[in-house]
Amino acid sequence: MIRFYNGYVLSFSGGINVKYGEVWTEGSRIVHVGDKKADMPSFEREIDLKGDVIMPGFKNAHSHTAMVLFRSLADDMELHSWLSDKIWPNEAKMTGEDVYHLTKLGIKEYLSSGITASFDMYFKNDFYAKANADTGFRTVICSGMNNFDADITNIEREYLKFNNYSELVSYKLGIHGEYTTSMERMEYMVSLARKYKAPCYTHMSETKSEVDGCIERYGLTPTQLLAKIGFFDYGGGGFHCVWVNEEDMRIMAEKNVYAVSCPASNLKLGSGIAPIDAMANAGVKLALGTDGAGSNNALDMFREMYLVSVLQKQLLSDAAAGCADRTLQMACVGGARAMGLDDCDDLAVGKLADLIVIDMSQPNMQPVNNIPHNIVYSGSKSNVRLTMVNGRVLYENGVYHIGESVEDIYRSANECAKRIFA
Amino acid sequence: MIRFYNGYVLSFSGGINVKYGEVWTEGSRIVHVGDKKADMPSFEREIDLKGDVIMPGFKNAHSHTAMVLFRSLADDMELHSWLSDKIWPNEAKMTGEDVYHLTKLGIKEYLSSGITASFDMYFKNDFYAKANADTGFRTVICSGMNNFDADITNIEREYLKFNNYSELVSYKLGIHGEYTTSMERMEYMVSLARKYKAPCYTHMSETKSEVDGCIERYGLTPTQLLAKIGFFDYGGGGFHCVWVNEEDMRIMAEKNVYAVSCPASNLKLGSGIAPIDAMANAGVKLALGTDGAGSNNALDMFREMYLVSVLQKQLLSDAAAGCADRTLQMACVGGARAMGLDDCDDLAVGKLADLIVIDMSQPNMQPVNNIPHNIVYSGSKSNVRLTMVNGRVLYENGVYHIGESVEDIYRSANECAKRIFA
Repeated sequence: MIRFYNGYVLSFSGGINVKYGEVWTEGSRIVHVGDKKADMPSFEREIDLKGDVIMPGFKNAHSHTAMVLFRSLADDMELHSWLSDKIWPNEAKMTGEDVYHLTKLGIKEYLSSGITASFDMYFKNDFYAKANADTGFRTVICSGMNNFDADITNIEREYLKFNNYSELVSYKLGIHGEYTTSMERMEYMVSLARKYKAPCYTHMSETKSEVDGCIERYGLTPTQLLAKIGFFDYGGGGFHCVWVNEEDMRIMAEKNVYAVSCPASNLKLGSGIAPIDAMANAGVKLALGTDGAGSNNALDMFREMYLVSVLQKQLLSDAAAGCADRTLQMACVGGARAMGLDDCDDLAVGKLADLIVIDMSQPNMQPVNNIPHNIVYSGSKSNVRLTMVNGRVLYENGVYHIGESVEDIYRSANECAKRIFA
Repeated sequence: MIRFYNGYVLSFSGGINVKYGEVWTEGSRIVHVGDKKADMPSFEREIDLKGDVIMPGFKNAHSHTAMVLFRSLADDMELHSWLSDKIWPNEAKMTGEDVYHLTKLGIKEYLSSGITASFDMYFKNDFYAKANADTGFRTVICSGMNNFDADITNIEREYLKFNNYSELVSYKLGIHGEYTTSMERMEYMVSLARKYKAPCYTHMSETKSEVDGCIERYGLTPTQLLAKIGFFDYGGGGFHCVWVNEEDMRIMAEKNVYAVSCPASNLKLGSGIAPIDAMANAGVKLALGTDGAGSNNALDMFREMYLVSVLQKQLLSDAAAGCADRTLQMACVGGARAMGLDDCDDLAVGKLADLIVIDMSQPNMQPVNNIPHNIVYSGSKSNVRLTMVNGRVLYENGVYHIGESVEDIYRSANECAKRIFA
């Protein structure tokens, strides 16, 4: 058992609670949250929080982890030439080994910013899954079916394989997006969703031109089209949801479709600002993601939390919009549930021990007027003191405990970049 | 002498240069930038950069440092009730001692995010200046004259006093803003500017209603009005400049008036996005500031750099807008010159040793495709390894060398908050 004591426990049951207390973990689970007990068991380790905050880890509900390769490669470019000149030709050169090494680099970045799980859509999933399992990190893989897949039946095989691969890995059904997937293939995905009674995910309404194109093709928005063909009959999620209208929101709320907002990526690519307050008012459930480092360029949930709040104020010209408490819930509870990780959504007895410690003894967290607001509005990855996944401390005080040395991970990543961009 | 070696020197002469090399400092000045020499002097300290980047410190060209008091006190509120219910009544309770302690907290935060100087407009300047001098931090004080000042002749006395106070402190003329200052008082400020041939500064065109009000009062925008009465005859700057039109930009370029952008504060208060690309195209010089922590809520130049770039992409729906290289120049060279700290604008022989070391051995800086872009788009305060002001290392590897203990600074700040918000 590991004991965290002498700190503030931030949990989400019935709003945000911050209470002085303890958290104990045993194996992969949380076994106690609350006060010190009269009768104390023996612990393998006792961690003095020294007044710091212990809370559920952030859930990165949309990413393409191995795209760390493209960080700072081609910024400040028009979207189409960025994709066609810089991203696609270089992705074609990526090997499975590249995905393995680059994923490890991305996982390091997740850990350093308090992220304890990611929801990833990319390729070469055998290598991706192995990098997560080898590192001890939790991930949910999402298939990204599109018109370029040579063999779409592979998705069902992956679904069965990766849902029985490791306690750290699971797999969800998804398509890349309506604009890259034929109706025939979308209908095939719906048949899989029905067969497994499974939620379905997709990039959705990221750009205005994507939505305009869908209306031109089908007379419906992407949300309306997908709902109509049964894609969301078992719930699921849309990544981005920048250009959703009232009817789309009504459908998402009714069908239990999460909106996974990626505000940094949307800004960087000039795609727009998602109507988070309007979606919340319509009853749409919300989560947050970093998207890939090619279009962000960081994998940092503090950036996303800050942005999703302040961008609503900009969008609505209203300083009261985008409230921080909801944002913190999106980053923890919302993300976990969007990814099907309900067991990782909070600090409570029986939940998985995916948690972080926030260092309050740094100037950006002082004075302590409001802890949740400090985290959302002035917090930074420099405040992440410890990150635990599945009961194991993977990051603590700047040191990574993920098997491979930091130097080796950097060397491999830079070798990939050198070879691919040569 | 202090020697930094085995790293990359980022400097700004003729664009951004990144070159492997060394930087030597002696007393408060830089005495060598370039290669190792055949004949090496003896050094009091040699710092192995280990491949990290050494560069000029960031200049925070607009702040109200002691407003760290208000961090997370009252977020997500409508602007007017925030000011009238939360800020003004509590500011009235602040003593000089409060300003002293809170300024020290703010300086800690500056150092931890690589800021080596701030341009501050607040009150109780004796206490503010002393906190900077005691800490070893560099500041430029700006008077914030307005209609509530009991004795406006105090500004001239402060001008003479603080420009002869310490090598770390200087003082510029300024008004709070057109909307809080009578024409008579603005004209008094112009008379001072003429007397001392000094640049003048003000909050300017931060909100649409401020500009509308000025047009109603005078038939001119704030920029046009101030230029007309001679306020900018010796140059100066406008803080925020969100709602400037083409004629305003033409005037600013002609009169050498810096636009000091504060993107985080503008977002948080729902004020809008400054037209940075348009100003740059019009020849307006640019700098960056954090504004106060009450409306930000962090004092973090990485946040401002990231935002000023990506918000242009949002404003113009163009991923190519807001280029990162210009942003890095704003944060270093532009800021220094806007504040009259031309001697702190770059790493070059004879310049003041206000510099920082950026830790590249963290995952958010890897792979190393483009160092300036990594700093702007994925950098974070966690990458600040060392901050030197005036030749003295004030922050290194998470440890502050500023005279007073971290614990004492936090305790004082929290005591202020407790008493004032009681």
